[in-house]
Amino acid sequence: MDLEDNVFMLPGPVKIHPRILRVMSKPSVAHRSPEFTEVIGDIRDLLKYMFDSDNDVALISGSGTAGMDMAISNLFGKDDKVLNITNGKFGERFGELSEMYSNSVALDFPWGKPPNLEDVAAELEKGDFKGVTLCHNETSTGLTNPAPEIGALAKKHDALFVMDGITSIGGLDVKLDEWGVDVALMGSQKCLGAPAGISALSVSERAMEESYDDASYYLNLKKHVTKMREKSQTPWTPAVPLLPALRESLLMLKEEGLLNRIGRIAKLGQATRAAVKALGIDLFPEREYASNTVNAMLYPEGIDDSFRDILKKKHNVIVGGAQAHIKGKVFRIGTMGVCTFTDLMACFGGIESTLKEMGHEFEEGAGTGAIVEYM
Amino acid sequence: MDLEDNVFMLPGPVKIHPRILRVMSKPSVAHRSPEFTEVIGDIRDLLKYMFDSDNDVALISGSGTAGMDMAISNLFGKDDKVLNITNGKFGERFGELSEMYSNSVALDFPWGKPPNLEDVAAELEKGDFKGVTLCHNETSTGLTNPAPEIGALAKKHDALFVMDGITSIGGLDVKLDEWGVDVALMGSQKCLGAPAGISALSVSERAMEESYDDASYYLNLKKHVTKMREKSQTPWTPAVPLLPALRESLLMLKEEGLLNRIGRIAKLGQATRAAVKALGIDLFPEREYASNTVNAMLYPEGIDDSFRDILKKKHNVIVGGAQAHIKGKVFRIGTMGVCTFTDLMACFGGIESTLKEMGHEFEEGAGTGAIVEYM
Repeated sequence: MDLEDNVFMLPGPVKIHPRILRVMSKPSVAHRSPEFTEVIGDIRDLLKYMFDSDNDVALISGSGTAGMDMAISNLFGKDDKVLNITNGKFGERFGELSEMYSNSVALDFPWGKPPNLEDVAAELEKGDFKGVTLCHNETSTGLTNPAPEIGALAKKHDALFVMDGITSIGGLDVKLDEWGVDVALMGSQKCLGAPAGISALSVSERAMEESYDDASYYLNLKKHVTKMREKSQTPWTPAVPLLPALRESLLMLKEEGLLNRIGRIAKLGQATRAAVKALGIDLFPEREYASNTVNAMLYPEGIDDSFRDILKKKHNVIVGGAQAHIKGKVFRIGTMGVCTFTDLMACFGGIESTLKEMGHEFEEGAGTGAIVEYM
Repeated sequence: MDLEDNVFMLPGPVKIHPRILRVMSKPSVAHRSPEFTEVIGDIRDLLKYMFDSDNDVALISGSGTAGMDMAISNLFGKDDKVLNITNGKFGERFGELSEMYSNSVALDFPWGKPPNLEDVAAELEKGDFKGVTLCHNETSTGLTNPAPEIGALAKKHDALFVMDGITSIGGLDVKLDEWGVDVALMGSQKCLGAPAGISALSVSERAMEESYDDASYYLNLKKHVTKMREKSQTPWTPAVPLLPALRESLLMLKEEGLLNRIGRIAKLGQATRAAVKALGIDLFPEREYASNTVNAMLYPEGIDDSFRDILKKKHNVIVGGAQAHIKGKVFRIGTMGVCTFTDLMACFGGIESTLKEMGHEFEEGAGTGAIVEYM
């Protein structure tokens, strides 16, 4: 058994389909050639399908953090007030970025709880905010934030709404235009199941107008959007092999259909929650806000993080741990991209076996049985 | 015939060896796992071998421009004077970056000519420069700049020396420690023949000390160096599939041996110049400064840039054009990485045939004959 036999259930990177892996191994191609410009043009059109918006797109050779940096550094300068709503690690990352580049006001809520909308409204009432940031789906806590409500508040106060959709767009129901999102972000290794290394932004006209020309060289928003719109190119040499892979993953999304994909992922997320409930394991976030792309669970009494080591070593099942103050107390399961019910069954086979070995009591087959009900 | 049949002779990206292509198509792996940490640790050690220096390294998921941005934005602030020595497109890019982030003083020399060292010395005499930038090997003009002399001048004036070695390190004779280079850059798709998308810096202790903590979030120099040194990791999710590919390309360099590689590339560069000379084609840069990794040639009388289209369409041979004011007047041939004498023969077979078709007069077989002499 080696890495290639893993049942890979992280909340990103996620399983990569063999169709996607195969297209990476092509010989060199000139990145400004007509052949490669066609790849990038296809990606632009397919990203708009994924974002479900006609807004312009920026294609970045860099991780999701590069996309977040581009959004914050290009939109907000030292004199611009930005409201950072945080209740997890990735919301906090927007806060750190805003601290560095702009005038950040952070509203921190407990991890696993939704933001208090009245507090958000009250803070915005103080006036003068150029922007509001939100991580739509907090990968760190398995919580989906109330983006439509935050978007409405940002709109009311005429602030730009910047939304991290890295583990929501293409996996959860997202309505960028309806919610008034000015900049939304995706990352290649999450809901698309493509390799890590690419991020993309959906950018409103207003965001283009209000972005600074000289804030960043490599991560220049206007240059990325303009080159993409006018020439189907990127301003700098892209991470060449990752782009045919990204296109293939987007084609697979389109073949399945965005709504079908979202519906299938919803069932996988619900099945995961049904399975852990049947095993007597509690969710970390408030149930009402639990995410369908990432579920975060509290370890039951007597089980510690060595659970993940046993699961990996004995059963080749890879699930996520947690970070910061919930490290060691929480484990996470991703159900994005081309994850299937049979993957989930394999995963819970390993989980049941490991829990039993570690002395947790439950009815054998209860977890996998709950999944079968959804299949 | 399709892209996979190309004789690929660009000055980067260059031909990728099948060994390197094959390792990209692995299933997902967690980028913080012990298995992947080992990949990054190997890369760190092998990069030091390539840089031929024990200085720390930063591994960046982003193109060479990302590496240039990291160097300039982290080392030089708005109040820091930086001398940008330029005689080509990539030297000018350092100038643009320094304009954006610092107080740039540009010394522009004609493309294809070496910088006048007396002018450089005189400018530095004016005092107060925190840094000096140089593109060691100007890919745009096929010229190798006198880096040791510039390094000595920077040292004399106690300025940080930042050198773009993107098409020199691992292909030409480079002595970072001896020349006093504080930050040197490489790009994956050049002398290593790995896929595009990764760059790396070699960073002196002084550069670490004098860099700013809060200049850039995604491209933070200190975070990259520290994570690499202490944990064999990158601060953010890397472009995962590109790293096993980079490691494989570095292993191939080590197997060949750095000095052997540089010697072989020197012969390929010389053979290219012998071949074009035999065909009655002039070099663009001053012959004494001609680069062994990239040769740039002036089109002879009566030949225009449609030469490259015919070469590609009829013979599947891909060579580079030129940019800016020399566009259409110059073509370029790269001989980096795993380029071989047989590749060069195939390339010049196409070139001779195309030149003949376009009416250029020369003795048939003169170019390829000149190459055979070197083989």
